[in-house]
Amino acid sequence: MKKLEEKTIDSEVIYSGKIIDLHLEQVELPNGKTSQREVVKHPGAVAVLAVTPENKIVLVRQYRKPLNREIIEIPAGKLEKGEDPEVCALRELEEETGYRSTKLTYLQSFYTSPGFADELIHIYYTDQLEQGKVQLDQDEFVERMEVTLEEAIELVKSQDIFDAKTAFAIQYLQLKEDRS
Amino acid sequence: MKKLEEKTIDSEVIYSGKIIDLHLEQVELPNGKTSQREVVKHPGAVAVLAVTPENKIVLVRQYRKPLNREIIEIPAGKLEKGEDPEVCALRELEEETGYRSTKLTYLQSFYTSPGFADELIHIYYTDQLEQGKVQLDQDEFVERMEVTLEEAIELVKSQDIFDAKTAFAIQYLQLKEDRS
Repeated sequence: MKKLEEKTIDSEVIYSGKIIDLHLEQVELPNGKTSQREVVKHPGAVAVLAVTPENKIVLVRQYRKPLNREIIEIPAGKLEKGEDPEVCALRELEEETGYRSTKLTYLQSFYTSPGFADELIHIYYTDQLEQGKVQLDQDEFVERMEVTLEEAIELVKSQDIFDAKTAFAIQYLQLKEDRS
Repeated sequence: MKKLEEKTIDSEVIYSGKIIDLHLEQVELPNGKTSQREVVKHPGAVAVLAVTPENKIVLVRQYRKPLNREIIEIPAGKLEKGEDPEVCALRELEEETGYRSTKLTYLQSFYTSPGFADELIHIYYTDQLEQGKVQLDQDEFVERMEVTLEEAIELVKSQDIFDAKTAFAIQYLQLKEDRS
């Protein structure tokens, strides 16, 4: 298994930003040749699949500058330095939606774009919600929505739900419903 | 719905690379204030969930420099400029696994990291495979694997399968099996 490894020969910081850094790495390939790898460093993220007592999914509509459009996603946010993912998930859920969870269940973690970025996202589930308080960041503008699973599936088809973590979350609920 | 939009005031190219570009965008927020957005530009990607006549999933083990480790993924690759995603999917499947598909079904597309990147990935399914020819890029080293759905679920648990597109693909197969 060792033979697939790419050893770092040199690493240059191209950009160090507010959310991401960009490194350019010179690597030695398994065949001894060298190549360059562009690597985006990201602090990691959390997302919460939250279901209300009325069996509706809590979503947020948000303008995403990289896409130059709004999409609808499960509540999510970046990890602060050293922050526990579960603490972050509880915080982001309340800040973005005004819901406080009294019981969060860890579902799964995955890298979002392993070809060029190290962003790892941790996905949680909750159906235990109580009223909290919306508190958005200064440069954050989101609208809360609550939809049924059937409506969420329609939002996938219309490409209003159009991101990996939310697509995963919808499938998770479909599997859960099938098996209940 | 217009009120969530972030208008670009200024855009600076920080880096223009082999696979990604990095832009720093000055935006006007919905409240009239300004902020900065770091945006990674990516050409987009495809991935193929391929199932053999023996009902095994075709996977590739690959070293991912951003993660500094190997992970196991469904075959995937970047779109060439102007390339049709289905053509790209057929090409990448054969190049990485040696399987040629005679019938590809489009499943879904999603953004992988809408907070900082515009990478859009298109996921295809096939269970119609014939023998083709492995032909890797000069700096690409992958190992083909074929596993049952049960084995794939174990690889998710052990975090050998550890990325968004492959997690989605495994769930897709679970749903398909549940409903058949």
